[in-house]
Amino acid sequence: MKSAIAIDADRLWTTLHTLAEVGAYTDERTGLRGVNRLALTDADAAGRRTVMGWFEAAGLAVRVDRIGNVYGRRAGRDADAAPVMAGSHIDSVPTGGAFDGALGVIGALEAVRALNDAGHVTRRPIEIGFFTDEEGCRFGTDMLGSAVACGRIPLEQALALTDKDGLRVGDELARIGFAGSAEHRIAAPHAFVEVHVEQGPTLAAAGVDLGVVEGVQGIAWWAITLSGRSAHAGTTPMALRRDPGVVAARLHVLVDALARSGRFGAQMRATVGRVAPHPGLVNIVPSQVELTLDLRNPDDDQMARAEDAIFAELDAMAAAAGVTVERRRTARTPRVPFDIGVQQVIAEAMEARGCTYQRLLSGAGHDAQEFSALCPTAMVFVPGLYEGISHNPREYSTPEACAAGVQVLTDALVRLADG
Amino acid sequence: MKSAIAIDADRLWTTLHTLAEVGAYTDERTGLRGVNRLALTDADAAGRRTVMGWFEAAGLAVRVDRIGNVYGRRAGRDADAAPVMAGSHIDSVPTGGAFDGALGVIGALEAVRALNDAGHVTRRPIEIGFFTDEEGCRFGTDMLGSAVACGRIPLEQALALTDKDGLRVGDELARIGFAGSAEHRIAAPHAFVEVHVEQGPTLAAAGVDLGVVEGVQGIAWWAITLSGRSAHAGTTPMALRRDPGVVAARLHVLVDALARSGRFGAQMRATVGRVAPHPGLVNIVPSQVELTLDLRNPDDDQMARAEDAIFAELDAMAAAAGVTVERRRTARTPRVPFDIGVQQVIAEAMEARGCTYQRLLSGAGHDAQEFSALCPTAMVFVPGLYEGISHNPREYSTPEACAAGVQVLTDALVRLADG
Repeated sequence: MKSAIAIDADRLWTTLHTLAEVGAYTDERTGLRGVNRLALTDADAAGRRTVMGWFEAAGLAVRVDRIGNVYGRRAGRDADAAPVMAGSHIDSVPTGGAFDGALGVIGALEAVRALNDAGHVTRRPIEIGFFTDEEGCRFGTDMLGSAVACGRIPLEQALALTDKDGLRVGDELARIGFAGSAEHRIAAPHAFVEVHVEQGPTLAAAGVDLGVVEGVQGIAWWAITLSGRSAHAGTTPMALRRDPGVVAARLHVLVDALARSGRFGAQMRATVGRVAPHPGLVNIVPSQVELTLDLRNPDDDQMARAEDAIFAELDAMAAAAGVTVERRRTARTPRVPFDIGVQQVIAEAMEARGCTYQRLLSGAGHDAQEFSALCPTAMVFVPGLYEGISHNPREYSTPEACAAGVQVLTDALVRLADG
Repeated sequence: MKSAIAIDADRLWTTLHTLAEVGAYTDERTGLRGVNRLALTDADAAGRRTVMGWFEAAGLAVRVDRIGNVYGRRAGRDADAAPVMAGSHIDSVPTGGAFDGALGVIGALEAVRALNDAGHVTRRPIEIGFFTDEEGCRFGTDMLGSAVACGRIPLEQALALTDKDGLRVGDELARIGFAGSAEHRIAAPHAFVEVHVEQGPTLAAAGVDLGVVEGVQGIAWWAITLSGRSAHAGTTPMALRRDPGVVAARLHVLVDALARSGRFGAQMRATVGRVAPHPGLVNIVPSQVELTLDLRNPDDDQMARAEDAIFAELDAMAAAAGVTVERRRTARTPRVPFDIGVQQVIAEAMEARGCTYQRLLSGAGHDAQEFSALCPTAMVFVPGLYEGISHNPREYSTPEACAAGVQVLTDALVRLADG
């Protein structure tokens, strides 16, 4: 199944890197060019305006919804048919690269541009879009915009989320001019397809051109607060301390060892990304430590068992140290299986284009998993260099790999929209 | 040896707590009243002006030197004789109490007030003072003012130190109006005596009234930067990570265990007060972690062996994890022995006042250790409740204990100034 529609690889690459200059910065240590478009910052707003302009220039009917998601609709021959959708996000982590999210948005735009060049009008409408705060770095909840659009998170709850400075999502949306008026809940599309960089080493290690994503592994985020007693570092004997910092360190060592042990499966992953002792001074035993825990597992039962094991051990370590534990789950996504039919359409498009591929699970969360609750959904993964490093300025996929992924996206969209 | 000079315990207590209201705050968790007079902040400046006013009201000739130390001189019968000095600091940690430092300054003021009440003029002049940034929390070097006065740290080096916001000591001194014109290096006094809260459990556990301080244990501060590679928390297999956060946690667990093991003596202490991962986000393996290490040991050889053992292990752990280590010693004080003669004067004053006492080493650094390089020096320790907790709003010594310590200080000053 190979559509007549050919994308323009140079236009795709140029557009992708034009967007990458919005919020760009140079990494001090490596000198590499990185991207910082943290959600609802001025840089994110500039990126949003840039992409909206391209949507409009491509003849799309653009709308912004109440959580700041931006949609561009290309009419089909059958105005009443449910649209086929494609999209991703343009927000980034503060130390991001040019491809994470952006490839899925600019790739969907390139599909529309290619259809325009060919003068091909699909039977079903095609809608492309980008969704608010997929990364979740700033407001603590990832896939925020798509979760609201697809109904997992109520709008009011999303608008009330605050960042570490206490700024609200709703206020920041208004501040940057993206508190839209369009209905935030969307009607079920016919299908949803997202192209994204793998952000991992699997495809490159297998030496294949692309990946067909079978689903997303389970994700759990925890915010943990350990409270002890601040004391003088010089005069307080070790035996009299109630040091939450030591308990945090033991927890960190424990979760790292558990993830490496294979006890909860070979694909278990654990990360402590944030550790914040209070008051955080050289000669004071901290009174309190806040830390985050990011757990991933492709097996929901293994994930639950890992959480039970970790927190049973934490409670014991804390009690022994005279430290109290508060923990709050800030995100929980069970394993999400993608649609077999859409996976098949994608696989056939790859075969028709002569691309080698492998089926795999995503280690990261993606907007597509929210849409999978609403309609048949799957994803195309594009391999990255350097073991697929991502959330880092070194993130890189070749022009050829990006073009292959976006051509397959285009072929799949046409197949789904004309079928 | 009991002088005829009696202090006013109520006046001492009232003055101490009047100063404690300058920079006071209420601890959210405990509701206790704490003190935050971080060096060279507006609160520190307000405290400085308050105490300077009391110095002047007591008839002292006040001078401010180029590092912001404040001295008050009471003339003696022999104008050419080297003065007997007493003093401490009024800066605090951000989460401090009413006694640390302040007792030594207000105690010295009370001694002068008592001499004034008695109309007693000593043979030698008496100089009391308070010294800039003893805590070292803000600019990373403790005992800063006394170290400059006594010649361990050059003035220019001290003025050039910066805080985490890049603000310079010299500029902050000027901003708060304490960049004085008096010579910063002082001539050798006849003797120096400092009264201070113990900040530890030893005296209370022994059930004695006061402590005669034999010296200060060795102190080493380290600033350590661990660099790895930031990566996506969901997609990067554990085996492919170079996570400096895990190495920091292993180091923290190691130094805590070493300090508790007794391998480097029963009084070895180790604290990791600050841990700062970059970028510090829930779903990103950090690229870099900065942490501090505070080591204390009464035996310099044991301290050196502990440092060697810790850093050999750190280098091995970091290499195994693909993480690089940079470390910088930010403070190093070998064990400081105090003067036997001054200790004896203090002990005799305690006996004359019927106070029970114990000789002990200080676990914390004090301004007195800088003066010990210049003249015969010793300290009086006042026990604290709650295991001597300090650098915490719960810090508390009874009015009776404070009065006993300050009476002994007064008697010792008179003995030294008339001898």
